[in-house]
Amino acid sequence: MNLDEATPGSIRPGGRTARVREAVLRVAGDLLAEHGFAHLDLTEVAAAAEVGKTTVYRRWRNPTGLVIDLLSDMAEQSLPHADTGSLLGDLTANARLVAKTLTDPRQGRLFQAVIAAATCDEAAATALRRFYDVRLTEWAPCVERAIERGEVPEGTDPRAVLSAVSAPLYYRLLASGDSIDDAAAATAATAAMNAATAGTFT
Amino acid sequence: MNLDEATPGSIRPGGRTARVREAVLRVAGDLLAEHGFAHLDLTEVAAAAEVGKTTVYRRWRNPTGLVIDLLSDMAEQSLPHADTGSLLGDLTANARLVAKTLTDPRQGRLFQAVIAAATCDEAAATALRRFYDVRLTEWAPCVERAIERGEVPEGTDPRAVLSAVSAPLYYRLLASGDSIDDAAAATAATAAMNAATAGTFT
Repeated sequence: MNLDEATPGSIRPGGRTARVREAVLRVAGDLLAEHGFAHLDLTEVAAAAEVGKTTVYRRWRNPTGLVIDLLSDMAEQSLPHADTGSLLGDLTANARLVAKTLTDPRQGRLFQAVIAAATCDEAAATALRRFYDVRLTEWAPCVERAIERGEVPEGTDPRAVLSAVSAPLYYRLLASGDSIDDAAAATAATAAMNAATAGTFT
Repeated sequence: MNLDEATPGSIRPGGRTARVREAVLRVAGDLLAEHGFAHLDLTEVAAAAEVGKTTVYRRWRNPTGLVIDLLSDMAEQSLPHADTGSLLGDLTANARLVAKTLTDPRQGRLFQAVIAAATCDEAAATALRRFYDVRLTEWAPCVERAIERGEVPEGTDPRAVLSAVSAPLYYRLLASGDSIDDAAAATAATAAMNAATAGTFT
């Protein structure tokens, strides 16, 4: 077993190893979205991805290993932040992106599955925190520019503002079950902006 | 099998049936908090609650049946809304209550477990929605009185305001992992109030 085969992070892009990872993570995501974390089975993943069972067990070890690598892959694919010229415009773009992800049939169920996995697995929880770190950091410049433009007070915390945009949409997905539509996205963005303008997040 | 035995909702208060239910739900909550939904086992619940296995299987049928009845029991125990005389006071009381619940070692893990259960089970999801309905409805008068006092615009939606208080705390629990402390509770209440004052939730 060489290191290149064993460590999902250190892979030649475009090589066989990368292709195997891509196929395995696609199937793992599909199965998670369809059946949830409790039923994620490495043998089934290997078969559906047409990859040797030994390779899958050696590289990802267990369902948690798959979730961790999937979250790291999803973090790499985080969409770049908007730059519309106003805080409300940027936050609305962010809210729409979150709403689109959470209502997408595959993505929405995939997020529910990895969040469920994180509630009962410490390593998956750490990977999930890291994923949201990447997302929240990627969009921080929207708030930093709003501070420069004088839209929100000096010292406003970008992470708090962006969390405030996402939170009501996740609450709908995971708790209240209220629908995640364009109105919900717009309200989430406006509420976060109004709270930020009033100096809540300094 | 008589109806009284079979239907968790139609029980003589204080009778043997009620005592059995109380013991079973306490144990089910403990086991859910400790091991999560995936490991909830009716035989184990029956043994720990010192109740006949047949009774438990007949009345609750499966792990989902236990989660549904537990959520209905938790909804009945929802704490009454505050009446501090100001919207910020009431919302802060609400945020502190949510924060206290989510950071309580048993309750916090129990909420994570039932939310995880709801992501992969439609009946559990319905029960969870109903639970939040009860909670959000119980506290609606705080917003209604704020409208009467002229603190927030006519037509402000109580459910939206109260969801805005809870959402950032649940987002910390389930997504970002940021700590749920008194500052987080105060910020959640202030952000919701500032957004409501600005007319976001009409």
